[in-house]
Amino acid sequence: MNTIFFNAHHAPMGAFATFTLGYKGAKGGFGLEIGKPADQNVYIGLEGKNPGVFKALPFYATSDDERKRYIEEDLAPAGDSSPVLDSFRDKAISRQFKVSSDTWLAGDLRFSVYSPFFPIPDPLRAPENECMLALVPAVLVELTVDNLASGRARRAFLGYQGNDPYSHMRVFGDESSGLRAVGQGRITALATIDPHVKCSLNMSIEKCLDPGAERQRVFGLGHIGSMLMDVPAGTKQTFRFALCFHREGMVTTGIEAPYWYTRYFRNIEAAALFALRNFDTLKARALEADAAIEHAGLSDDQRFQMALAIRSYYGSTELLEWQNRPFWIVNEGEYRMINTFDLTVDHVFFETRMNPWTVRNTLDMFADRFSYRDKVLLPGNPEEFAGGISFTHDMGVANAVSPPGYSSYEQPGIDGCFSYMSHEQLVNWLLCAGVYFAKTHDENWLSGRMNTVEACFLSMLNRDHPDPARRTGIMKLDSSRAASKAEITTYDSLDASLGQARNNLYLAVKCWAAYVFLEFVFLREGKSEWAQQAAQQASRCAQTLLSHVKEDGHIPAVIDENNDSRIIPAIEGLVFPLYTGSPEALNPSGRFGALVKALKKHFETIMVRDVCLFDDGGWKLSSTSTNSWLSKIYLCQFVARKVLGVPWTEKARRSDAAHVAWLQDPGNAYYSWSDQMHAGVAKGSLYYPRGVTSVLWLDEQAA
Amino acid sequence: MNTIFFNAHHAPMGAFATFTLGYKGAKGGFGLEIGKPADQNVYIGLEGKNPGVFKALPFYATSDDERKRYIEEDLAPAGDSSPVLDSFRDKAISRQFKVSSDTWLAGDLRFSVYSPFFPIPDPLRAPENECMLALVPAVLVELTVDNLASGRARRAFLGYQGNDPYSHMRVFGDESSGLRAVGQGRITALATIDPHVKCSLNMSIEKCLDPGAERQRVFGLGHIGSMLMDVPAGTKQTFRFALCFHREGMVTTGIEAPYWYTRYFRNIEAAALFALRNFDTLKARALEADAAIEHAGLSDDQRFQMALAIRSYYGSTELLEWQNRPFWIVNEGEYRMINTFDLTVDHVFFETRMNPWTVRNTLDMFADRFSYRDKVLLPGNPEEFAGGISFTHDMGVANAVSPPGYSSYEQPGIDGCFSYMSHEQLVNWLLCAGVYFAKTHDENWLSGRMNTVEACFLSMLNRDHPDPARRTGIMKLDSSRAASKAEITTYDSLDASLGQARNNLYLAVKCWAAYVFLEFVFLREGKSEWAQQAAQQASRCAQTLLSHVKEDGHIPAVIDENNDSRIIPAIEGLVFPLYTGSPEALNPSGRFGALVKALKKHFETIMVRDVCLFDDGGWKLSSTSTNSWLSKIYLCQFVARKVLGVPWTEKARRSDAAHVAWLQDPGNAYYSWSDQMHAGVAKGSLYYPRGVTSVLWLDEQAA
Repeated sequence: MNTIFFNAHHAPMGAFATFTLGYKGAKGGFGLEIGKPADQNVYIGLEGKNPGVFKALPFYATSDDERKRYIEEDLAPAGDSSPVLDSFRDKAISRQFKVSSDTWLAGDLRFSVYSPFFPIPDPLRAPENECMLALVPAVLVELTVDNLASGRARRAFLGYQGNDPYSHMRVFGDESSGLRAVGQGRITALATIDPHVKCSLNMSIEKCLDPGAERQRVFGLGHIGSMLMDVPAGTKQTFRFALCFHREGMVTTGIEAPYWYTRYFRNIEAAALFALRNFDTLKARALEADAAIEHAGLSDDQRFQMALAIRSYYGSTELLEWQNRPFWIVNEGEYRMINTFDLTVDHVFFETRMNPWTVRNTLDMFADRFSYRDKVLLPGNPEEFAGGISFTHDMGVANAVSPPGYSSYEQPGIDGCFSYMSHEQLVNWLLCAGVYFAKTHDENWLSGRMNTVEACFLSMLNRDHPDPARRTGIMKLDSSRAASKAEITTYDSLDASLGQARNNLYLAVKCWAAYVFLEFVFLREGKSEWAQQAAQQASRCAQTLLSHVKEDGHIPAVIDENNDSRIIPAIEGLVFPLYTGSPEALNPSGRFGALVKALKKHFETIMVRDVCLFDDGGWKLSSTSTNSWLSKIYLCQFVARKVLGVPWTEKARRSDAAHVAWLQDPGNAYYSWSDQMHAGVAKGSLYYPRGVTSVLWLDEQAA
Repeated sequence: MNTIFFNAHHAPMGAFATFTLGYKGAKGGFGLEIGKPADQNVYIGLEGKNPGVFKALPFYATSDDERKRYIEEDLAPAGDSSPVLDSFRDKAISRQFKVSSDTWLAGDLRFSVYSPFFPIPDPLRAPENECMLALVPAVLVELTVDNLASGRARRAFLGYQGNDPYSHMRVFGDESSGLRAVGQGRITALATIDPHVKCSLNMSIEKCLDPGAERQRVFGLGHIGSMLMDVPAGTKQTFRFALCFHREGMVTTGIEAPYWYTRYFRNIEAAALFALRNFDTLKARALEADAAIEHAGLSDDQRFQMALAIRSYYGSTELLEWQNRPFWIVNEGEYRMINTFDLTVDHVFFETRMNPWTVRNTLDMFADRFSYRDKVLLPGNPEEFAGGISFTHDMGVANAVSPPGYSSYEQPGIDGCFSYMSHEQLVNWLLCAGVYFAKTHDENWLSGRMNTVEACFLSMLNRDHPDPARRTGIMKLDSSRAASKAEITTYDSLDASLGQARNNLYLAVKCWAAYVFLEFVFLREGKSEWAQQAAQQASRCAQTLLSHVKEDGHIPAVIDENNDSRIIPAIEGLVFPLYTGSPEALNPSGRFGALVKALKKHFETIMVRDVCLFDDGGWKLSSTSTNSWLSKIYLCQFVARKVLGVPWTEKARRSDAAHVAWLQDPGNAYYSWSDQMHAGVAKGSLYYPRGVTSVLWLDEQAA
């Protein structure tokens, strides 16, 4: 490992909240609805060998005592002998980082955070208690003090300094339930039901810890809240806590929606009590998740990346209630865009594995509120042709839900970034629908949505060419929404080789996959003519791509447009037939065997140093950009091995080590999991959910 | 004036919210529930003579275009010819600052903020529309563009960049009502119903302003929202806006209480519409308030201080609903403590003038939830004697309401700051009750509270001395709550001369005033024995003080304790008999004539340079501290003139100029009105409500 001091999310599911910890300094803490670590002081530690000297994990900044703001210097009590706080040394600290538990060991202290994850049941159908377990906005902590060898009692502590601008820190509790907590306002709290734990609130952590200041243990003006645990000599004790979040009432604009969990937990006290009373169950689920990943046959490097990515994903998840129905949201990491569709299509493998109903929920929301109809234009030609349905790039940003039919991102008349992604999102809807249906066989849903599926097909045809005779299976017309500018793809900020949608190799292979799914679904529905037409489009697409293979075997990133970048995501779309019910389409001896073989050749040709490999062995998505995205690398690694059968040599494994090194680089490790790496430096898509494409790796073992 | 660029609050009443403006840079904006200016960019300006070049008032910081976070540098569109924004030069800007309107003039731009204030009716008794007018969480803006001399249309703008960490900026509106707004989340907004105004949202103010980017006018990812007003050539137009705040649901901890205004306005849209539809009425009330202060016979320096102070007070006000009743709060400026009682007693003159029911509300809350019973101790003696009732220093901090019987501030076993203020708050309850009753003649309330009044009297007696024969009319015992430490006074952070409660001259005169009130009220109630005893205590107090007059005429700050500081607040307590129904107690030839004359002599003796005057003529509350508090200065100025008949010479007027200079010093002017000035430098009690003691000056004209 490069450093153990990397931030990791510990996020409840669906609460748009995360307790982030691991990067040194005041760089973690309780993050609610924000796109970065909360940058709070977190105090976790234990009294040392010398009384009054406390050792803590290094997750705080040294700061002035707030009392000085109130007291004239010459009035400050002389000879103040406050306790002293010091950090454990790095080499005294070790970490056991797993997908659902994260344990820090230092001296006689053991500190574990459990952030269980498991399928979230459809809350309209599941028993309430199961929903409560899944959606309780809290994660769990165990803090163990080994005081067996000590001849005196020692004080351990767990505290934080919130930074909500509106409300104050507080100590609270309830005698009848035994709840004890420190928290900030109504939104974050650290709670226990252990009667041996005391709460403190003060203007410095040292004041909180001061055993000589028992009478001033709770100071209403304090900015720092801490739990205090006095562990008797010769004993070993474990204390349990819940780290809780809560936001009540309407939280969105554009629509008015509260968090779904507020149905079960009217305030943070209720959430805390439920989490603490169900500690055993929730911890057991966390350990199950740990074990499942531990025994999945992954390499250490793979396991680390997947664990960090899954945690980061959950920190972006949000389940709201709108019109008495669930509204599932994945926020886009640092950007906080709501259900960015080109992320949804990457999350679909994880979500159909965990809780497929969230995919259905998102598809329904896109179809019902975030679809639109456009016209389409040939480049350089003002004539408008019939277009069709497409879907918005996203549904808003940071709880600001955008108006029906519009995203927060897309703008008309823009070159490059922030232009429309009409064709890509159209294909994404079909592919997500395909993955959802193949996983669930939800016939009811599919028949209810066949109108949309058919509209999507017609829309794709119209974007190929208005004249059926001139169709080639790939996108050649831009949306009128883009107002005479070019549509772009999800690779908006990478480089032109991947950014332009028209004639784009990456998008073409996804179109092919969409046509393959359409053939499949039309056949099922007995619409044989439509199925035939879809099959024809898939074949045309394959033919078009095959006709552009260059001598060395690579296919240019943008065909027919004088762009000769080499791109790894050419193979990305090959993942879909595996998950949309048409694995036979990937058969090298089958109908599309030539395409599959050509793409394998393309891949093998470009995966060389200085083309699509960095010096460290890391993958370079485009030969003409240093910006490379881990989520897409994970996906393409899977395709290379599982679909193309590329042998995974020791040299290939070097890439995983390189990608781990990127994430654990001290310059990047603050952001937990990040996507956009510029030659290994995290520069965009920080603190991001998209890395769950890595769960595809779990399907390689099964084969 | 020293600078016109001082921050001033523009605060709705009872919303714990303020739009602050005036200090250069990103130093103002929409502040909700915070104890300092919001530090937001506020954009107010007009297109200049050259198209595409915009001039703005200097209330923003220059900042990078956020788009750069998304776009690779080499992909940024070349030759971007965005509009240019520049500040008006200082000398081109003038300001008309009044108590209820604040107008900026620059070039062809006129920008006025109206923050009307008027009596808030008791919401349990008043018509709903009157309550809505008083409590609508909005202030008003008029922006006038004089484009008469221009041959082309020019674009004016009004925008801001919010800094709520949780929610995004947005554009919103409603066709049926005609509402158009930019805002952040559900909590702040800038709204209009003028159909000629357009809304913009973008990543820079320049992009918002760009007339060439009409199609990209609203960009969902934008962090800056602006109203755009295109004013045709040869016209002069005025645009009206509401600057709105809204927080729904429960906002407190400790108790669960929402803002009262949420009864009338379920969201910010409703508040905005009401404010805009009642613009004329609200503006008229603002102008009435302006006129009342303009014609009150004050000097310019007095008027400025009073205006700044009244605005600052309203920024701290908060009206909640708890148990179906109003809960009135004044937050303590930067400290945000709730109803700090030693501020309430200073606010009482303003509040009884405006809305006496809020004083009653606060007294009831102190009596019902924030009173306690203690024992009392003689210094150095562990024996506990009977104590009695007293009241907490405050009711919590920053919407964290403290437990019954406890403040957020007071701690046991503390020397100096943060110790208990039992005796002072006891006296404060009586004095506030006296001012309330004398103003309202609310017999019902008084008879309902006579038990409390009597308990207060007995508590005062017990704090004088357990042996009636040894009572001297002043405090000699400390509360057991202080746990063997000394009680302090409101002057906690000033110096020892004012900080210690026992034997304190300032507190003694307030005790005398409390006894005078008690005599008055017991006489009314026909309790002649109690009245006699109260009169006896008042006389004892007077005698004790008179017996400590030094040869030069001053009375030491702490008697019998070897402290010989000279303090101005010796005369502070003399204000009360005027307002508690016993003005005759202040008659120099009357019963307490000797005390009044002695205090006048004390005052005249100490009001010399290097004792209680700074070099600049400003008042120095204590001869042994450079920390001087404007709120108390205002009060004592009033007492000196009105009660003691001190002639107000030209030299005396210099003090007002000095105090204005303190407030307008560029180092202090960021904090709007501040209380604690260390030799003219604002160091504590910043952004503070207490300066409304200045309204006492209005009662001098009436005499």
